[in-house]
Amino acid sequence: MLKEHNWHQLKDDTEQRLQLIKPYLREGKIIAASDTVAVMEAILRSGDRVNIEGNNQKQADFLAECLCKVDPQKISGLHMVQSSVPLSTHLDLFEKGIAEKLDFAYAGPQDGRLAKLIQQGKIKLGAIHTYLELFSRYFVDLTPRVSFITAFEADKDGNLYTGFNTEDTPVIAEATHFRQGIVIAQVNKIVDKVPRVDIPGDWVNAVIEAPRPFYVEPLFTRDPALITDTHVLMAMMALKGIYAEYGVERINHGIGFFTAAIELLLPTYGEELGLKGKVCTHMVLNPHPTLIPAIESGWIQSVHCFGGELGMEKYVAERPDVFYIGQDGTLRSNRAFAQAAGHYALDMFIGGTLQLDKYGNSSTATASRVSGFGGAPNMGCDAKGRRHTTRSWLKCGEEFNATQQQLIGDMPRGKRLVVQMQETFREKRQPAFVDKLDAWQLAEKAGLDLPPVMVYADDVTHVLTEEGIAYLHRCDGLEQRMAAIRAVAGYTDIGLAADPAQTQALRESGIVKTPEDLGIDRRRATRQLLAAKSIRDLVEWSGGLYNPPARFRNW
Amino acid sequence: MLKEHNWHQLKDDTEQRLQLIKPYLREGKIIAASDTVAVMEAILRSGDRVNIEGNNQKQADFLAECLCKVDPQKISGLHMVQSSVPLSTHLDLFEKGIAEKLDFAYAGPQDGRLAKLIQQGKIKLGAIHTYLELFSRYFVDLTPRVSFITAFEADKDGNLYTGFNTEDTPVIAEATHFRQGIVIAQVNKIVDKVPRVDIPGDWVNAVIEAPRPFYVEPLFTRDPALITDTHVLMAMMALKGIYAEYGVERINHGIGFFTAAIELLLPTYGEELGLKGKVCTHMVLNPHPTLIPAIESGWIQSVHCFGGELGMEKYVAERPDVFYIGQDGTLRSNRAFAQAAGHYALDMFIGGTLQLDKYGNSSTATASRVSGFGGAPNMGCDAKGRRHTTRSWLKCGEEFNATQQQLIGDMPRGKRLVVQMQETFREKRQPAFVDKLDAWQLAEKAGLDLPPVMVYADDVTHVLTEEGIAYLHRCDGLEQRMAAIRAVAGYTDIGLAADPAQTQALRESGIVKTPEDLGIDRRRATRQLLAAKSIRDLVEWSGGLYNPPARFRNW
Repeated sequence: MLKEHNWHQLKDDTEQRLQLIKPYLREGKIIAASDTVAVMEAILRSGDRVNIEGNNQKQADFLAECLCKVDPQKISGLHMVQSSVPLSTHLDLFEKGIAEKLDFAYAGPQDGRLAKLIQQGKIKLGAIHTYLELFSRYFVDLTPRVSFITAFEADKDGNLYTGFNTEDTPVIAEATHFRQGIVIAQVNKIVDKVPRVDIPGDWVNAVIEAPRPFYVEPLFTRDPALITDTHVLMAMMALKGIYAEYGVERINHGIGFFTAAIELLLPTYGEELGLKGKVCTHMVLNPHPTLIPAIESGWIQSVHCFGGELGMEKYVAERPDVFYIGQDGTLRSNRAFAQAAGHYALDMFIGGTLQLDKYGNSSTATASRVSGFGGAPNMGCDAKGRRHTTRSWLKCGEEFNATQQQLIGDMPRGKRLVVQMQETFREKRQPAFVDKLDAWQLAEKAGLDLPPVMVYADDVTHVLTEEGIAYLHRCDGLEQRMAAIRAVAGYTDIGLAADPAQTQALRESGIVKTPEDLGIDRRRATRQLLAAKSIRDLVEWSGGLYNPPARFRNW
Repeated sequence: MLKEHNWHQLKDDTEQRLQLIKPYLREGKIIAASDTVAVMEAILRSGDRVNIEGNNQKQADFLAECLCKVDPQKISGLHMVQSSVPLSTHLDLFEKGIAEKLDFAYAGPQDGRLAKLIQQGKIKLGAIHTYLELFSRYFVDLTPRVSFITAFEADKDGNLYTGFNTEDTPVIAEATHFRQGIVIAQVNKIVDKVPRVDIPGDWVNAVIEAPRPFYVEPLFTRDPALITDTHVLMAMMALKGIYAEYGVERINHGIGFFTAAIELLLPTYGEELGLKGKVCTHMVLNPHPTLIPAIESGWIQSVHCFGGELGMEKYVAERPDVFYIGQDGTLRSNRAFAQAAGHYALDMFIGGTLQLDKYGNSSTATASRVSGFGGAPNMGCDAKGRRHTTRSWLKCGEEFNATQQQLIGDMPRGKRLVVQMQETFREKRQPAFVDKLDAWQLAEKAGLDLPPVMVYADDVTHVLTEEGIAYLHRCDGLEQRMAAIRAVAGYTDIGLAADPAQTQALRESGIVKTPEDLGIDRRRATRQLLAAKSIRDLVEWSGGLYNPPARFRNW
């Protein structure tokens, strides 16, 4: 027994650090914004694991800025463990030597610069995670020592109101605080009493009223005006060939115009197919503005959200039968629980990608961009721990039988639908289908152990292009799967290698379906079929409750 | 647009229900225990989805008893959505007709009665889940309308102190409250100020001081006195053939004597193998008393817990460098986050089972017992959404290459270690290896869509018996995997069917290893190797901090 051992070294260290910020505490836990840098220098130690809250939506941007101002002579070599690094300040920390190691999930607009900094050796990359995976490591080997979080409001006791943009805050605060870590929050406003308590004050060591509200990116807003006829055709194929075919009720839609088109076809083409009440009844996704027509038409019973979406505050608040709403009347989003739901309680993930290889592995990473995948790997995989059944999950499992028998014998099991939608050529005539993913090159350049794959081939059940749908899980073995991919890969090199006779056989066996095989009249695949054709239409559908950000307003 | 539609029906309904309990509210949100049944009759409606908190550990047992006393003429057909049904009252509800449908994760001692009630048609079984899966559905299609939860203490505003046994409470309260549901808590004590806020009072509608403290089952306590020499032999094989071989740092140990033996060998045999600091550094599990010697010997850096374990309160509180501890000085457990960590942040799950079939599918379900699997499926599966690498995960993935190539082509990927330990014969000379799992019969009798499998064959990497270890993931195809299983299945019918020449070949290729192949001297495999041989030894190791429940004290 280590009788002489000090078993509370973390706690002692924390108490010493907190002593140093006592002089800065005004009333209760309040610290003046002008003292932020000094407070950071007092509570941080070189080499600390640090989290700056920020995901693909809200950002503790003021605290990120302040952290860039600490003296690298005093504080250096921080190990950043955070969902996202979309702000330039997040990477400035590495340029300045304040931080040196990064574990994250999503880079967004900083993906190119991130790749460069890794190659220059200025960032030691731990790993690219899916959100829930990173949160999980907060309770194991990546617990933050100090977390800089953000909320709408705080009281002097540190109780936080995170409301519409609760997002990652609860899981960060819990992991940090209960492992003797330090939690500091920037808030838009300090108030006498918060409208509701999202984070108990016990868990927060200090609160700072930032000089301006935290930054939020409206990442999930897609202007219907930019949806093309091809998007509409592919959305029709998805609805008829997948949603209707499997009767999928519980769904996540990824970001992008493909799924925005699907959302906008529900009240038109979906209605025509008789799908109302039968598909898309329960969703886990952010409050996409393009969902409004489907919600207003009574398609959607419930939506649980990862985060908020700028402009949707009032609309969501007025639809408490659909969304998760607090007694203050606003949304409670929660990325950790929405991702858990996205993994275990959904029957389908459908989203876009950048590249698919000849086996069906897909990635949004390119040789010069470390983009990260956010939540896609968590939802775009077969949840092997799942044990409840639904019709669509069972059907997909039955169709997967040829492969499954080789894995688990005659034991039946279901399978989640994972659909990757992509036009055969993306921007600048880059082929979406490639022999080898750019991720291989990236892995080499960035010194990764593995190429960063977003969705692995054995998890993808459907590849959907303007050419058709490949029902990959119905294939018997890798060779047939590769042929099915070639059949929908159009005029890319992969597609040109397709053998017409083999493609014909795949169509006859229902493994590949073209729009014609699905009985879709291409002439109807136009923007006319969209329930809303512009942001303005969405505002109208919402009865004026949706308040789009300025950049989306052109009237 | 459904302009005329009422979009706040749930909220209106909740407000109406809450009006009815106003007469029972004493100070703030406090209700007298004697009013509980009347309050339940006021706030429940027939057919409601209802959660009575309870898992394999703490139980809202007083509220469960009260729910059995509501008038079935007034309240019937409830749909129970809860982690566990180990109390007789949980099933009495169905006998009385108050409840009719059940979605759950673990039955424990009620498994036989549950099977009967299902066969009698008194319980409509939704599904058997893994915990995190059920929690996930709380945010999608199984949100509770009313939840009856439990905590140590509450104040009059409804702030809850769940402390050491926080367990499932946060996720239940969040899902219920923010979907306009009603949350009522039984607490051991109503106080002026809770020692810390685990659940904000905003989320709780009423609190009741129960006539006695909530029930807790010390499910994870294993008396070292009951560990056999065979357990020790198997634990030695695990340490040398798996822990050392893969260098597994982040682990969950399931319930049982096999893993208790491993824990107690760390400071002895593990030390001898030079594994200290190299394996078992980060754990996600309950505070098993058998972990004490390893913790005291400095093996374990961190432990995150699903729940508490009776008697371990003080020991855990005195080891804040290892456990997650609040500022009140006691553990914060959290089943949802520990399960997420168990899925995404661990490299190995190792635990026992009851039956394995010839392919390697395993189950604890028998024809007459619906036991449920708790957290095992979530941790005993390959987390396909995982994207970070560790040495053991990469090594296991490389060894899986023969199968993986058929699934994802030449793309490399890691794999989680999932170890099933079982003697070839269990109690009453029942063979642990069978041609067909009893789960098939159960599925037929209980009308399940699929046989309830705990861990599927393609997720199991190692089967460990007293005969040896089968490294299943190293096999090339199903036939070889089945041969490897036969090789370690001893004198069961499955084992007797092994071809000695084939077994020899598997041993030579490192797919099967006997104790001799591992260089383990069987003569050393005795209880003498255990760091603690009794509960009393554990108390001594803890310096008197561990306070075992009476049933485990024989001195």
